[in-house]
Amino acid sequence: MSTTTENGVGGYRNTSGEKTYKKTTSSALKGAIQLGIGYTVGNLTSKPDRDVLMQDFYVVESVFLPSEGSNLTPAHHYPDFRFKTYAPLAFRYFRELFGIKPDDYLYSICNEPLIELSNPGASGSLFYLTSDDEFIIKTVQHKEAEFLQKLLPGYYMNLNQNPRTLLPKFYGLYCIQSGGVNIRLVVMNNVLPRSVKMNYKYDLKGSTYKRRASRKEREKACPVYKDLDFQDMHEGLYFDADTYNALMKTLQRDCLVLESFKIMDYSLLLAVHVLDQSPKEGGEPGQAVGDGKRPVAQRVLYSTAMESIQGDGKAAEAHTTDDTMGGIPAKSHKEEKLLIFLGIIDILQSYRFIKKLEHSWKALVYDGDSVSVHRPGFYANRFLKFMSTSVFRKTPSKSAGFCSSVPYDRDTFMTQAVTHASHWDRKTSVMV
Amino acid sequence: MSTTTENGVGGYRNTSGEKTYKKTTSSALKGAIQLGIGYTVGNLTSKPDRDVLMQDFYVVESVFLPSEGSNLTPAHHYPDFRFKTYAPLAFRYFRELFGIKPDDYLYSICNEPLIELSNPGASGSLFYLTSDDEFIIKTVQHKEAEFLQKLLPGYYMNLNQNPRTLLPKFYGLYCIQSGGVNIRLVVMNNVLPRSVKMNYKYDLKGSTYKRRASRKEREKACPVYKDLDFQDMHEGLYFDADTYNALMKTLQRDCLVLESFKIMDYSLLLAVHVLDQSPKEGGEPGQAVGDGKRPVAQRVLYSTAMESIQGDGKAAEAHTTDDTMGGIPAKSHKEEKLLIFLGIIDILQSYRFIKKLEHSWKALVYDGDSVSVHRPGFYANRFLKFMSTSVFRKTPSKSAGFCSSVPYDRDTFMTQAVTHASHWDRKTSVMV
Repeated sequence: MSTTTENGVGGYRNTSGEKTYKKTTSSALKGAIQLGIGYTVGNLTSKPDRDVLMQDFYVVESVFLPSEGSNLTPAHHYPDFRFKTYAPLAFRYFRELFGIKPDDYLYSICNEPLIELSNPGASGSLFYLTSDDEFIIKTVQHKEAEFLQKLLPGYYMNLNQNPRTLLPKFYGLYCIQSGGVNIRLVVMNNVLPRSVKMNYKYDLKGSTYKRRASRKEREKACPVYKDLDFQDMHEGLYFDADTYNALMKTLQRDCLVLESFKIMDYSLLLAVHVLDQSPKEGGEPGQAVGDGKRPVAQRVLYSTAMESIQGDGKAAEAHTTDDTMGGIPAKSHKEEKLLIFLGIIDILQSYRFIKKLEHSWKALVYDGDSVSVHRPGFYANRFLKFMSTSVFRKTPSKSAGFCSSVPYDRDTFMTQAVTHASHWDRKTSVMV
Repeated sequence: MSTTTENGVGGYRNTSGEKTYKKTTSSALKGAIQLGIGYTVGNLTSKPDRDVLMQDFYVVESVFLPSEGSNLTPAHHYPDFRFKTYAPLAFRYFRELFGIKPDDYLYSICNEPLIELSNPGASGSLFYLTSDDEFIIKTVQHKEAEFLQKLLPGYYMNLNQNPRTLLPKFYGLYCIQSGGVNIRLVVMNNVLPRSVKMNYKYDLKGSTYKRRASRKEREKACPVYKDLDFQDMHEGLYFDADTYNALMKTLQRDCLVLESFKIMDYSLLLAVHVLDQSPKEGGEPGQAVGDGKRPVAQRVLYSTAMESIQGDGKAAEAHTTDDTMGGIPAKSHKEEKLLIFLGIIDILQSYRFIKKLEHSWKALVYDGDSVSVHRPGFYANRFLKFMSTSVFRKTPSKSAGFCSSVPYDRDTFMTQAVTHASHWDRKTSVMV
């Protein structure tokens, strides 16, 4: 326990090999997560269903869990801690929206071991995956949690309009307080099912500046590559026209929401499973995984890649079979059959804009600061252009006979949407 | 035009008999409404469909319509005016939510004469009804319009969760500026179809203090009576158990939303059509009305009384037939068959609380002012108690053999809902 080696910003590894985060061992953190969520979800079931009100987004519930147990909480082997649940009724409502039953949420998180993932980014966050592949639990910084809290009403207004989205779905926000330390956690949907062997993984931003995986990253078993690596390794991923259009439309709607919140610096997490490569080697969808359990497609609604981009109603269920594990069928330029898994990640880091959100939403409309107004639009524009031309491509129709990808006309869309909004900025006036 | 007589706060009648509002004749106002809404809805159709963003609630669109016409607007016979549309994209989304197509909205408001209603309250507002009974257009004061603007994001969060509600459905907010005068208008659902003859009309608040219709009101052809009058004239309105429970549940959810916005002083507008009374005398649902057109049930989704309280899915359509015109079947204590029409009205007058909403929603949670915290709860409680016991009653089951109405256990419900929220107030803390 004496020597620690740094592992990103907040994550350390002690001499016994166990990771620590803010001086808390990973096992103590996992234990506190399971006890805390177990308590808070159980407690919620006694509260009657009612409509979510605006105030519910600002409620924080708090319970103390001493090691020796209490009237309300069981005894445990970790240091005393306090567990805070943010916006419990609001998150309950949104778990329902995505078809997550309280018992399933409890079972997934509390009844099976949490699997610690090696840090996919360099943020120093710890990541845990539930055994059934449904949920990711991620430590977040104070400012990120605060940003999420402020974002929630508007964010969920958009989720309500459009549950088919590649944006992260937040199912809970918690804080564990112990020994003078606060560890904040978000529960989100999991983009990459473990049961599928990913041949390539990318973190894409649409930028080329310094966007190459480090040597250290490349030495890993399954490195997360970046934009320049993608361009070296692929000549685009090819989809049939309907799928390509659905994917582009989803990305555009999502980027518009992010732009409206002045969020930037997000990434597209993209994983490619090659179906044609050596089916005997295991990791093929539908095959048994390491722990001997037969993998099943994710149960949470709209959480698979395919469901996230499917435009219409109930049809998506049919797509989420054991054959694709929710991945989107695609082809490489060499006609290899692929399954694509993807989601937009890292949307909470833009907390420099928090001051603007603090006052009121009006501040966003009246804001004259050209940097904060235009930079998120520039970012979204570049992101979409890269995705729609360099990364995703439409399979050329056989009659045409030549290979041209038709980039979705993002400019027209965005001009009529966001730029429309900023156009109105100038005309906007308070009621007089 | 020289002499005017006061008619409420803002409404006057000039010597030619035509009403004026803020020095504007009713015919000029109707003309400006039809021209303005015609322009703004037409203009919207050229804007592509996209998700509503939080900022959209604060957008104000403005167009100038000179008498001689312009490139964008037709010539007209009224003074020059400017027409402002508040939150155009947000209201478009919510019209869609209620199944109102742009063409139908345009046609209802702009293509048939607007019918001026005699002022139902003493507010001085002018009320116009569209010829097809779908929409009410009402003048509102500056503060009311401002309050509605601030309310919109949270109000529609609730409508999204629960489109079955007796709360007013707002379909548009506009302002006509002419000759230095601002006239603000809301477009809402119409609670009382003209094609049904209402035998009794009430404005109920659950209070008994001075709640009797004035002598002047009583002299009208169809007076709007109040709480004490109701108690003199009826021994309650009887519903089967399912309908009673659905009605109470809807009122409770609605009152909870109003309480969360600190709104008070609203009324239940209640109209009773007696089915058994002399069917030959006309005014019977399904019969031809004065203008010789066969009445049809309202087309707008969830806008009839029956649809407003129906809990489950699609079933409501079946209920909205020509037989009931969307009214809720009930009986008097003398076993007369009735149809009940109702809606909660006058929710925008509580603008004294506007200061609190201005800062942020958080202010509502942290607010320590016991008056503003408790008075809306007291009002809601008294309102619900009166409705659930004195006004609406459950038909006694035949096996029981005696007449006892079982008031819905509002206390339990509210304790677990609103008072739960204020319970949490004390525990609530900002993130530290």
